[in-house]
Amino acid sequence: MHPDEEAIRNLIADWARATAEGDLHELMDLMTDDVVFLTSGQAPMRRDDFAAGFMAAIEHVKIEAQTDVQEIQVANDWAWCWNYLDVKVTPRAGGSANRRGGYTLTILRKYDDRWYIARDANLLAASL
Amino acid sequence: MHPDEEAIRNLIADWARATAEGDLHELMDLMTDDVVFLTSGQAPMRRDDFAAGFMAAIEHVKIEAQTDVQEIQVANDWAWCWNYLDVKVTPRAGGSANRRGGYTLTILRKYDDRWYIARDANLLAASL
Repeated sequence: MHPDEEAIRNLIADWARATAEGDLHELMDLMTDDVVFLTSGQAPMRRDDFAAGFMAAIEHVKIEAQTDVQEIQVANDWAWCWNYLDVKVTPRAGGSANRRGGYTLTILRKYDDRWYIARDANLLAASL
Repeated sequence: MHPDEEAIRNLIADWARATAEGDLHELMDLMTDDVVFLTSGQAPMRRDDFAAGFMAAIEHVKIEAQTDVQEIQVANDWAWCWNYLDVKVTPRAGGSANRRGGYTLTILRKYDDRWYIARDANLLAASL
């Protein structure tokens, strides 16, 4: 596997793990300063919007995602991939987990030999 | 404006015009052979799926989209952009038009000096 592809797969795995652990600090370190998250029915989210949304969500739920990478393409310091996500959302207060699936299309950016999430379109339902 | 960005803006405009005109032949000429369209709640669509869905839709509705390009980035023979779409769907049988807005994130590919739509995530509601 090409080192860039391997690095991007590791980034995707790190993202899922940090999400499940509720580790906002690590997530913020995996995205560019100018990151944009696009979701259905919501305004584009930047870093601060993401942080606020994530903190509000993980107060109430645990978010576990299995990521099935469909395709990765690298073009110098840019790359893109699309993935299938199988997401399990479990209320912290108890009660049954909610499970949903859907695709993401993600643009990645390489700075100083490290890859970051730069733009992301998430086709799962709007809010977790 | 950089010639690649201008070409991509023209492609986006051509796409909207061909959609409004119901010109499937032109749309097929604006996408790569391996194009993938990602939408919410549906399986990924390839060329044939797109063609079938488009023909089924335009039998009943006219689809007019205003595209507001938010950002275009070119990396050699790849490019990506994200856009805001304002879509008006008008039933051909009469009745009031339905209007919706949402974002797209699109990967573009250059072959033989021409740009094509290669991967597209459409965050508007699933079906037109």
